[in-house]
Amino acid sequence: MKHLLGIRHLSPQEIEEFYLLADRFYEVLQQPTRKVAALTGTTVGLLFFESSTRTRLSFELAAKRLGADVLNFSATGSSLAKGETLLDTALNILAMGVDALVIRDEGVGTPHFLARKVSVPIINAGDGTNEHPTQALLDTYTLRRHFGTLQGVRLLIVGDLFHSRVALSHLHIASKVGVSLSLCAPPSLVPASWYGLGLPIYHRLDQAVKQADALLVLRMQKERQKQPSLASWQEYVRYYQVRPQHLRPGQVLLHPGPINWGVELHPTLQAYEHKLILQQVTHGVAIRMAVLYALLRGR
Amino acid sequence: MKHLLGIRHLSPQEIEEFYLLADRFYEVLQQPTRKVAALTGTTVGLLFFESSTRTRLSFELAAKRLGADVLNFSATGSSLAKGETLLDTALNILAMGVDALVIRDEGVGTPHFLARKVSVPIINAGDGTNEHPTQALLDTYTLRRHFGTLQGVRLLIVGDLFHSRVALSHLHIASKVGVSLSLCAPPSLVPASWYGLGLPIYHRLDQAVKQADALLVLRMQKERQKQPSLASWQEYVRYYQVRPQHLRPGQVLLHPGPINWGVELHPTLQAYEHKLILQQVTHGVAIRMAVLYALLRGR
Amino acid sequence: MKHLLGIRHLSPQEIEEFYLLADRFYEVLQQPTRKVAALTGTTVGLLFFESSTRTRLSFELAAKRLGADVLNFSATGSSLAKGETLLDTALNILAMGVDALVIRDEGVGTPHFLARKVSVPIINAGDGTNEHPTQALLDTYTLRRHFGTLQGVRLLIVGDLFHSRVALSHLHIASKVGVSLSLCAPPSLVPASWYGLGLPIYHRLDQAVKQADALLVLRMQKERQKQPSLASWQEYVRYYQVRPQHLRPGQVLLHPGPINWGVELHPTLQAYEHKLILQQVTHGVAIRMAVLYALLRGR
Repeated sequence: MKHLLGIRHLSPQEIEEFYLLADRFYEVLQQPTRKVAALTGTTVGLLFFESSTRTRLSFELAAKRLGADVLNFSATGSSLAKGETLLDTALNILAMGVDALVIRDEGVGTPHFLARKVSVPIINAGDGTNEHPTQALLDTYTLRRHFGTLQGVRLLIVGDLFHSRVALSHLHIASKVGVSLSLCAPPSLVPASWYGLGLPIYHRLDQAVKQADALLVLRMQKERQKQPSLASWQEYVRYYQVRPQHLRPGQVLLHPGPINWGVELHPTLQAYEHKLILQQVTHGVAIRMAVLYALLRGR
Repeated sequence: MKHLLGIRHLSPQEIEEFYLLADRFYEVLQQPTRKVAALTGTTVGLLFFESSTRTRLSFELAAKRLGADVLNFSATGSSLAKGETLLDTALNILAMGVDALVIRDEGVGTPHFLARKVSVPIINAGDGTNEHPTQALLDTYTLRRHFGTLQGVRLLIVGDLFHSRVALSHLHIASKVGVSLSLCAPPSLVPASWYGLGLPIYHRLDQAVKQADALLVLRMQKERQKQPSLASWQEYVRYYQVRPQHLRPGQVLLHPGPINWGVELHPTLQAYEHKLILQQVTHGVAIRMAVLYALLRGR
Repeated sequence: MKHLLGIRHLSPQEIEEFYLLADRFYEVLQQPTRKVAALTGTTVGLLFFESSTRTRLSFELAAKRLGADVLNFSATGSSLAKGETLLDTALNILAMGVDALVIRDEGVGTPHFLARKVSVPIINAGDGTNEHPTQALLDTYTLRRHFGTLQGVRLLIVGDLFHSRVALSHLHIASKVGVSLSLCAPPSLVPASWYGLGLPIYHRLDQAVKQADALLVLRMQKERQKQPSLASWQEYVRYYQVRPQHLRPGQVLLHPGPINWGVELHPTLQAYEHKLILQQVTHGVAIRMAVLYALLRGR
């Protein structure tokens, strides 16, 4: 594997190797210094053309904890604002001596485009509403650590499937790792093409949760509701907010963050025992270390 | 001591230990490499929800010169802007693997709130108009190095006591370290409750300066004069600006910076011999190294 | 040499030494780790009062690849915005323990002013429309590597000479290194004083390019066209855009970046074989390593 552009392109074996590497790096993170020298001398460029502080910090920490250097490039105040093309920006950063690019962009396919043009590994940190592969890897890795296996784990994704960059990566990963996936969203927030995929798609939350072992609740992003795809924000909260009464003992709760308490999750769930949300964050660093290491170890 | 939330909570012995550690780190800063490996493998998170470049840089340098790694999180363009709670932000950063949080926020009590919720040391880098403990530590440390002792040193604070985050920390530190404190401000810029503290409060600058060994002149912050608490900016300059004729030989001049020359200080004082303002900056790095080391050495 | 304020102040021997050092550091950059420990323990302050992501990143990488630490200070959200003087800002950063300052500012002469006031080396990273010495050094270093020598190399600079911070540094370097310089620009974009310098100044591009071995095409900066110095943007493109038909075999093409494809360069030139634009970026890191090393090695 040269790049990590999407879950779509990964084999089950490649995914399994990421999990195994993440296990090793998770152990490293539990040690006092949290560091290895695996990528000393390597420089990782972080190109975030869309702001995403937590994903960027997670990649930055992952790189540094492997001993790599980090070069941060964000679009604000940069040459992109002066009209430079994205390809020129990437080529320039590479010409400074960078060994891999982590890219977040609102355009679908931007990382794939760059991967065809440059000679270093490209890691997709979210391309529009397409894929966000490290998020799906860390979510399933969290389930794998919790349940001991992914085989037969029933995962329900609740929320805005239409604008999410997480849902599609989960669609691809589920069948590859044995997760039994179902979906729940208002009709207006389900892409039409998804009805043909053979997955259970629910429009009633109380029915949807019954069969699930784990819920992955997506963030409702007001800033993404550009067209009036949602009848009303209040109706969403009324019919799709996950509340304590929806959950039965042992069901685990995941969320990619940042959370809108009181929108997609009821505030009392802040105390919910089987919340794995902070574990997702910790595992995120381990997974990103695994990805960077897998793509750069042979350099 | 687990956290540094305010001078209010410190014993004289704890303050003395900070000074002694700062002496050691000041020596380190005079050496060519300016570094020790005391906190290698430690990661310090800097959470600045209010911009304060110089305080942030001072903490960042302090951490790096102890061998620690730094994770910078500022509110601009971050998940806070997307509606995440401050607690969730802090918990997320901790979940990435961070050993201490330095926090600056405009809300009074934010660091105290976090200290009750999280398991790592919290360092208050300024919470609204409440405390800014490292500033009071570095100011008194600067006086201590200059005069050889703090016992009986007469310090006059001049300026906007009402909006200052520095004054209250000095109120707490003075009695603990033996400094004889007095205050000078226009009546509208003195919090009413301060009149009952038994400290001399002057409204005439020429009278106030007579008994002082050292002046700490506060920054006039136009951006903080929200209600018409000040009769007029021109009147402040006329009656409270510190000028060369106010100072007698040997009196030292401190300012927490950044300075408005021509407002709280007359421009000719740029050449004043007994100005300790840049020493404050240097000592600030030493004091912050002392604080980080004291809170993290046992990790 | 204590500072690098401009090419104007350099002797041919000093320039030659930068080239020779850059040769050594270019070799370092080709090695897997790309690093030397030449400036370990040194801290370089980057003061960018005008945004310039690529120049800042190039200096940052150069410093880190010499083993130095970097302290980044930009004007946004900083004490400058609170009214602090530039000198106070610089003095404060130095008081924190910084060994050299790299400064970019829109004011002509800012680095020269600071050099008279502070005790550490100052490196000019662009002062308004005056000088940008590391750009001229890296451009000529690129030509030197390509042609094997600079003696007699005929360089044509095309574009907005009036607002450029690059042109003046080239004016100074050409005679010192043996480059034969000529210029091409619309009459309104040539500073009046340049006509007396004895250099060929062309207003017709097809005539200008005939004698050149290399073209350095300047960026057209819409944001700098404040007064109506340019008749029209469309006319510039029509008469001064460099197109494939202007170039003959072997002529090399340089650009300081970021490029406006379709303005100063025709888009088909993205595939031009003798483009040295990315080499300029790589050489930029080597030249900046050379400059930092030359000024700081004796510390």
